[in-house]
Amino acid sequence: MSPRDAADYLEFAYHTALAAGAAILPHFREAIAVEDKRNFMGYDPVTIADRDAEAVIRAAIKRAYPSHGIHGEEHGRESGTAPYTWVIDPIDGTKSFILGQLHWGVLIALHDGTRPVAGVVHQPYVGETFVGAAGGRAQWRRGDERRTLATRACARVEDAIVVTTDPRQFRTPAEVAALNAVADDARFLRYGGDCYCYTQLAMGFVDVVIENGLQPYDVQALIPIVEGAGGRISDWNGGSCDQGGAVLATGDPTLHERLLLRLRT
Amino acid sequence: MSPRDAADYLEFAYHTALAAGAAILPHFREAIAVEDKRNFMGYDPVTIADRDAEAVIRAAIKRAYPSHGIHGEEHGRESGTAPYTWVIDPIDGTKSFILGQLHWGVLIALHDGTRPVAGVVHQPYVGETFVGAAGGRAQWRRGDERRTLATRACARVEDAIVVTTDPRQFRTPAEVAALNAVADDARFLRYGGDCYCYTQLAMGFVDVVIENGLQPYDVQALIPIVEGAGGRISDWNGGSCDQGGAVLATGDPTLHERLLLRLRT
Repeated sequence: MSPRDAADYLEFAYHTALAAGAAILPHFREAIAVEDKRNFMGYDPVTIADRDAEAVIRAAIKRAYPSHGIHGEEHGRESGTAPYTWVIDPIDGTKSFILGQLHWGVLIALHDGTRPVAGVVHQPYVGETFVGAAGGRAQWRRGDERRTLATRACARVEDAIVVTTDPRQFRTPAEVAALNAVADDARFLRYGGDCYCYTQLAMGFVDVVIENGLQPYDVQALIPIVEGAGGRISDWNGGSCDQGGAVLATGDPTLHERLLLRLRT
Repeated sequence: MSPRDAADYLEFAYHTALAAGAAILPHFREAIAVEDKRNFMGYDPVTIADRDAEAVIRAAIKRAYPSHGIHGEEHGRESGTAPYTWVIDPIDGTKSFILGQLHWGVLIALHDGTRPVAGVVHQPYVGETFVGAAGGRAQWRRGDERRTLATRACARVEDAIVVTTDPRQFRTPAEVAALNAVADDARFLRYGGDCYCYTQLAMGFVDVVIENGLQPYDVQALIPIVEGAGGRISDWNGGSCDQGGAVLATGDPTLHERLLLRLRT
């Protein structure tokens, strides 16, 4: 896909994320019924907000791009006739959301059949958005403000700030060993953050994100943002992480190579 | 102290926190030198923002209440001739701050010689504030919006959402056992949050906060907010936690009694 096409799709995704955020906000920090889906982490709350926001996004896609496929967390997959698929997590960081905390966001990505080519993270309560499209520079937006995102240089793990959402993503001995291989020598390891782990890496304030057990809709929107800020994001073997699973992101490409070597040994 | 006096001091603290927030904001998500103080957690960054904000708060207190004492994280203790002491953490959640994340805040408390009687948590980037004063109801504020804070009923640990900032606050076998006694049977345990653990308990979205190794300025502002929302906050023996250390907060007083029993055995 050409950078111009990716940029056009990105603007659609941006405005759709704002509309979804408007549907979510009335439910944030209100008493809402939380339903227990029981995923592998033991507890996966689904809220009215989640489902309403996904419905808003799906309706917008069907109006604008009726031939495209859609894959969302709450309402599943719908195939399209085009090779393009919109991949949606209406509220990433649902636990943070139901606690009334702030590290959650609307995630919208476009996958062109080969890779995610546009991605948006939108936090409506804070009013900020992170966007990226293939071939372009990632950007932070708040109201009319715009800022280009750029990761920072950090080639040595000893200098790196590492973040991960929850230590319980790492359960098997091999998974624990992977976290330790990355974090043990680091400057420090911070827990918590969900999508904000990656946006802050794209902003240049985090050097490494390592996670495990992700779904495609947890990560696809983040890939163009990280890459559009100069970072690297892959699975733990260096391959694509667009199908989720085990994810390693770094701000500095050199550090990415070094950490992949550690993860392989 | 009378509820009216406490409420008056609270309004001073509220406006002072807004002024401190204005001093912090230009440094948030900007490249700033981070100095390494090496506390027991291994890494304690101090920023220009931290020191500037504390200077703003100290100057305001000296103008308004020159006889009062001041105890701040960055500039230490100054005794006053009055029994009152202002206890300040200019940026609680410094790690979250330097990562460009959102769970941090300006903390200002007034201690009357017996207990904290007024407390403020202010997040200037998000633009929201949590306030509480002895004898009054705690409140959330954003711009001109106001909402009374109230914890939720949750008498059973099996129904409780438990949060703590970092599992590494619990190092000795007794500390780990304390965390497990509270969290093992809970609905779920969430990491991360700093002051937002307590504000969200006061809002009724978190049932239990357990932490360890806190300083007086980490916790004093939170006590009137939790208590003014109907919650309980103490050390792990049920005594005052105004000097920091090991802290247990619950939204439901019955649950507090039950968890103290677990912590004693």
